[in-house]
Amino acid sequence: MYSEKMHQLGTNRSVIRDLFEYGNQRKAEIGPDKVFDFSIGNPSVPAPQVVTDTLCQMVKESDPMSLHSYTSAQGDAATRQAIADYVNGQHGTDLTGDNFYMTCGAAASLTISLKALYEEGDEFIVFSPFFPEYRVFIEGVGGKLVQVDSRREDFQIDPATFEAAITDKTKAVIVNSPNNPSGVVLTEDCIKSLCAVLEKKQKEYGKEIFLIADEPYRELVYGDVKVPYLMNYYDNTLVCYSYSKSLSLPGDRIGYIAVSNKAKDWKDLYAAICGAGRVLGYVCAPSLFQKLIGKCQGQTADISIYKKNRDILYEALTSYGFRCIAPDGAFYLFMETPEEDATAFGEKAKKHELLLVPADSFGTPGFVRISYCVSTEQIQNSLPAFKALAQEYGL
Amino acid sequence: MYSEKMHQLGTNRSVIRDLFEYGNQRKAEIGPDKVFDFSIGNPSVPAPQVVTDTLCQMVKESDPMSLHSYTSAQGDAATRQAIADYVNGQHGTDLTGDNFYMTCGAAASLTISLKALYEEGDEFIVFSPFFPEYRVFIEGVGGKLVQVDSRREDFQIDPATFEAAITDKTKAVIVNSPNNPSGVVLTEDCIKSLCAVLEKKQKEYGKEIFLIADEPYRELVYGDVKVPYLMNYYDNTLVCYSYSKSLSLPGDRIGYIAVSNKAKDWKDLYAAICGAGRVLGYVCAPSLFQKLIGKCQGQTADISIYKKNRDILYEALTSYGFRCIAPDGAFYLFMETPEEDATAFGEKAKKHELLLVPADSFGTPGFVRISYCVSTEQIQNSLPAFKALAQEYGL
Repeated sequence: MYSEKMHQLGTNRSVIRDLFEYGNQRKAEIGPDKVFDFSIGNPSVPAPQVVTDTLCQMVKESDPMSLHSYTSAQGDAATRQAIADYVNGQHGTDLTGDNFYMTCGAAASLTISLKALYEEGDEFIVFSPFFPEYRVFIEGVGGKLVQVDSRREDFQIDPATFEAAITDKTKAVIVNSPNNPSGVVLTEDCIKSLCAVLEKKQKEYGKEIFLIADEPYRELVYGDVKVPYLMNYYDNTLVCYSYSKSLSLPGDRIGYIAVSNKAKDWKDLYAAICGAGRVLGYVCAPSLFQKLIGKCQGQTADISIYKKNRDILYEALTSYGFRCIAPDGAFYLFMETPEEDATAFGEKAKKHELLLVPADSFGTPGFVRISYCVSTEQIQNSLPAFKALAQEYGL
Repeated sequence: MYSEKMHQLGTNRSVIRDLFEYGNQRKAEIGPDKVFDFSIGNPSVPAPQVVTDTLCQMVKESDPMSLHSYTSAQGDAATRQAIADYVNGQHGTDLTGDNFYMTCGAAASLTISLKALYEEGDEFIVFSPFFPEYRVFIEGVGGKLVQVDSRREDFQIDPATFEAAITDKTKAVIVNSPNNPSGVVLTEDCIKSLCAVLEKKQKEYGKEIFLIADEPYRELVYGDVKVPYLMNYYDNTLVCYSYSKSLSLPGDRIGYIAVSNKAKDWKDLYAAICGAGRVLGYVCAPSLFQKLIGKCQGQTADISIYKKNRDILYEALTSYGFRCIAPDGAFYLFMETPEEDATAFGEKAKKHELLLVPADSFGTPGFVRISYCVSTEQIQNSLPAFKALAQEYGL
């Protein structure tokens, strides 16, 4: 009568979404300040003032016809050039607007890229822990998800493990750094070794293997950490970007795909991306927000709040005896659970009103994800509950 | 290396888009006022003042966190309820917000609906003339497009022709009224006979056949014409709507799918739509524009301008001897070409700087589509060229 698979995907919501709904119910029962909800990766810092001011000015002063009309399917030409100029300035690339395809955010960037690349039988490698929707998107275009575990000691990627997973069916590899859910940033050494493996395997199989850099958290890094720009390390690279986190505009759905001008036959690949966007029904990315972000290149929301949250939480949790991955970026803390079953641990945490996401669906049993994109006050108020939880486990 | 099919879809742009690009080049050569570009269905009337005022107010006065944050995948609850209230008031339905799923515009509404419904081997019936992207969307989910020609004398649907095309593989039928490209509104009698055929065939095959009402032009009708609301005539109905034309917001990508509360197991169908939106990467419809349209129910751009354009053009062209379908809605005039080959006719029209879209890709050879969503001035200035073209054909 209708697609069973789509029904299943629409009915079985993610663990994250279920926990978030539970949190909302629980808050209604006992008061919102009594529930420590660390479930959702929704920015807690408002969009910067420049966004509000620019939006106001555009709406008030621009001709509504040009503001709200269709852009080309690739996106507004001036916006794409502004992004190219910014990326070139940051990373020393020599891209033009023609390398950029504007999208409705990171999820659209990924589904369009996968649809453009997919041919029958293709496999796509992801590194655990990985954003669970990768499975939905990869299987949605018909592909096979191949999971490669990152090293459990530091969540970097072991080149030999990676190499062993590549087959003649590997079409692309998704790299997500800073990582959701671990907060880990892959080091330059790790990236270099990963790219060396890819180069070797491309030669061995006589085919292209693409690198998809899923980078919505690029700007959310703390301290001196550098996030290598993958196009500078590997030619067959697509960068999937979103302004959801950097400008705190998650609901407005605005991002892009950047196709490296060194990728094999990159103009044909770009054309395939245009075709994929068309067949998925994307017409064009939201025009007002395209034009807005064209004027806000290099701006971010106040990232320092996330750093403060991270520092307080990481220091407290480790002092209570929890083992956490030191996070350099994003707004997630990844914590090893003191019992093997993360779901059971999550249930015990719930008794302390702590909502932590068991990471089994991220491909990493034995961990929980703690989203610290919440108020600093919530973090401080939650510490006694974390301490009590640690004591319950005799840490 | 990448999907050949996507490359082809990204490279072979539509006839409309090609003509539009030609028009831009030609305007650069001889001046924009010398080229009579009737190629594109882009609203020529600005968004109403209420849109600009409401946007300004929302951006200035709302908390940016709530304005720009994710909504649920289905869409903002208050917006969906506002739409339900409006639709119920207009059409006597008893829908709630739970019947509505917010989308990134009409194309997204269609791709999500098709993806939700499609099972292997499914066929989807469309009536010619039809929007050429229907083929891209239907084949994109794996379905087979089955073309049923509407009656050439009035472009209504002949029930017997329709019935003969339905098989046990027919999953859904797309009805687009007011129609792009003909401007024709299907009469209530036509709708009733169409629905009677569907009821009969559902019983015969013991299965559900869905009706997809693609209605971006619902408000663009002139005079006393009524556009029947299909849910009131047939239970298994999905309405795909967009605010692109009614509020002149085509670039901002905002629309919805309404699932009839009388459709078989409608909550399961709604869940399949949620799953389809998820797998296609849609996360949520643009949040600021969701909230905007929630506050602008019942508003439209100044439709009277389109009516004026239609009247001038229809009267002039018929007086020159061209045979046109009397259009009751949308902003298209459908004209029979005085020679069989519409492309050859289009080329001759180009010599007069008239850019008219040959309708072969709409499934109706021997016609051109004339988009009168242009300035009234352009229409008036173009009349001598149309007259000369008619004379060239000895009309």
